[in-house]
Amino acid sequence: MAQTPDTLIGAIEAGGTKFVCAVGTGPGDRMLARASFPTGDRPAELLATVADWLKEQEGRYGRLRALGIASFGPVDLQPGSSTYGFITSTPKPGWQSTDLVGRLRAAFADIPIGFDTDVNGAALGEHAWGSASGLSDFVYITIGTGIGAGAMVGGELLHGLVHPEMGHMLLPRAPGDDFPGICPYHGGCWEGLCSGPALHRRTGVPSEDLLPDHPAWGLATRYIAAAIANITCILSPQRVILGGGVPKGGRLGEDRFFQQVREKLQAALNGYITAPALGPDIDRYLVPPLLGDHAGVCGAIALGQKAAREE
Amino acid sequence: MAQTPDTLIGAIEAGGTKFVCAVGTGPGDRMLARASFPTGDRPAELLATVADWLKEQEGRYGRLRALGIASFGPVDLQPGSSTYGFITSTPKPGWQSTDLVGRLRAAFADIPIGFDTDVNGAALGEHAWGSASGLSDFVYITIGTGIGAGAMVGGELLHGLVHPEMGHMLLPRAPGDDFPGICPYHGGCWEGLCSGPALHRRTGVPSEDLLPDHPAWGLATRYIAAAIANITCILSPQRVILGGGVPKGGRLGEDRFFQQVREKLQAALNGYITAPALGPDIDRYLVPPLLGDHAGVCGAIALGQKAAREE
Repeated sequence: MAQTPDTLIGAIEAGGTKFVCAVGTGPGDRMLARASFPTGDRPAELLATVADWLKEQEGRYGRLRALGIASFGPVDLQPGSSTYGFITSTPKPGWQSTDLVGRLRAAFADIPIGFDTDVNGAALGEHAWGSASGLSDFVYITIGTGIGAGAMVGGELLHGLVHPEMGHMLLPRAPGDDFPGICPYHGGCWEGLCSGPALHRRTGVPSEDLLPDHPAWGLATRYIAAAIANITCILSPQRVILGGGVPKGGRLGEDRFFQQVREKLQAALNGYITAPALGPDIDRYLVPPLLGDHAGVCGAIALGQKAAREE
Repeated sequence: MAQTPDTLIGAIEAGGTKFVCAVGTGPGDRMLARASFPTGDRPAELLATVADWLKEQEGRYGRLRALGIASFGPVDLQPGSSTYGFITSTPKPGWQSTDLVGRLRAAFADIPIGFDTDVNGAALGEHAWGSASGLSDFVYITIGTGIGAGAMVGGELLHGLVHPEMGHMLLPRAPGDDFPGICPYHGGCWEGLCSGPALHRRTGVPSEDLLPDHPAWGLATRYIAAAIANITCILSPQRVILGGGVPKGGRLGEDRFFQQVREKLQAALNGYITAPALGPDIDRYLVPPLLGDHAGVCGAIALGQKAAREE
């Protein structure tokens, strides 16, 4: 991706708990200002606060060239749609049918606004400055409160009919595992079995406190490996980036968590697809995000840069 | 896709049982000549025969502008690779490490050669003249001797690290189904449970002779629906095209087979992804290929046209 260091972007990572906002041209030192606001249940007020904060930074650092918004969903991404730029059918109180892009366009009428899912934003951030630098085909997965994923295929973010909902894929059960899963739609889909809340429900303990020898780690890494095997069979990515709270591995630790998932992924594929990335180079196939917890807001900067380039 | 009716293409559908060759500019009347040769176990001889046949047609219909080859696999599609254009590690006797593209380039040195998997070829054919006309994101699946799939994402064929191997995704077991599956790598992956040979092994009867009320149809449509639910969650296609022998539904019939898969697909997704294509328009989401058994060789014509355009 061509980097455009002179292009000052207003970035919004719209999350279900907080909105992280930034002004800058990239990660690290290139992020000039950063602020966080609780999401709450009054979108109109929050979005006015966010717009005011961005205007204030504009007074300090110079004119913004574009906005980038990476949002929790479901969102409408169809350019021609009458609800383009909306958060649509979310269960989050107050946020149903919120015109996210429209409310910010009212304050920033003259600049382009890039808008995508939080996970597509994070994928774009990892592509610009992180673990997916130089790749054309990869997947960014986050496992936390839910399981979401964004994908790049042939150098472009994958959108398709709506957007991927990889967290809801169906997986084979581990023998003897009769935990029903917590997804209200699918019970034991991937998210229903492996999200942070699913592990908490299964064990009675938050995943960050789970001891290294707790059998739930064995199940979680098995299901995550099966899901990544399916993503490998369906999307044939060059790399899979696995972020969010659960892959930090609690007291097991990130390194051991990743090692277990990599071993089980290779066992699940069983050598059928022959490529170095799935053999000796597996440590570079499945990796944590380089931007870590900043992937989201950096992704929003990258979405703004993309909008500026495409204007 | 821009159609190029003046561009005469030599097309080769390289299958495990037979090679179907054609000269033409498209399907139907636009296919000027067509011939079929058994694959056998002597690639050098067969490819010389194929080249001779194409030269003969060139004498009759005019100079070929490009060749298109849609091949059984695994194949090497990496442009820079030393084995680009090869059939690589196939168990098919005589065909390991066959330089398919190289042997044809020896006979047709001056024209471009488009080369891809059989299923990517069929996908491109359905995009040019069939069930995927006008779409940018769709999947073409064939369920026969094996299960394979090709995908278009954002208007381009998906390749990624190697190429998709969707037939090998892992699926949840139906309660009480203890059939071990026949995949030598994964046992009961999708292909291990649902290919034609898997249904034959499960029932003792070829799928084309299976009676409408045989319980194997219930299992097959359930697993196929689960696999398409996973493809829907991961790729978010605008349409899924389902071809090959098994979806003809034997004595159950194609219409009832598709109806069962559609119902079970909607049950598996359970309304989570809201889009007309997955609701009232499901009959247009999951469809048979319009080119039917000609998808492969038409796809090879489309691959040749693409190579001619990109030259």
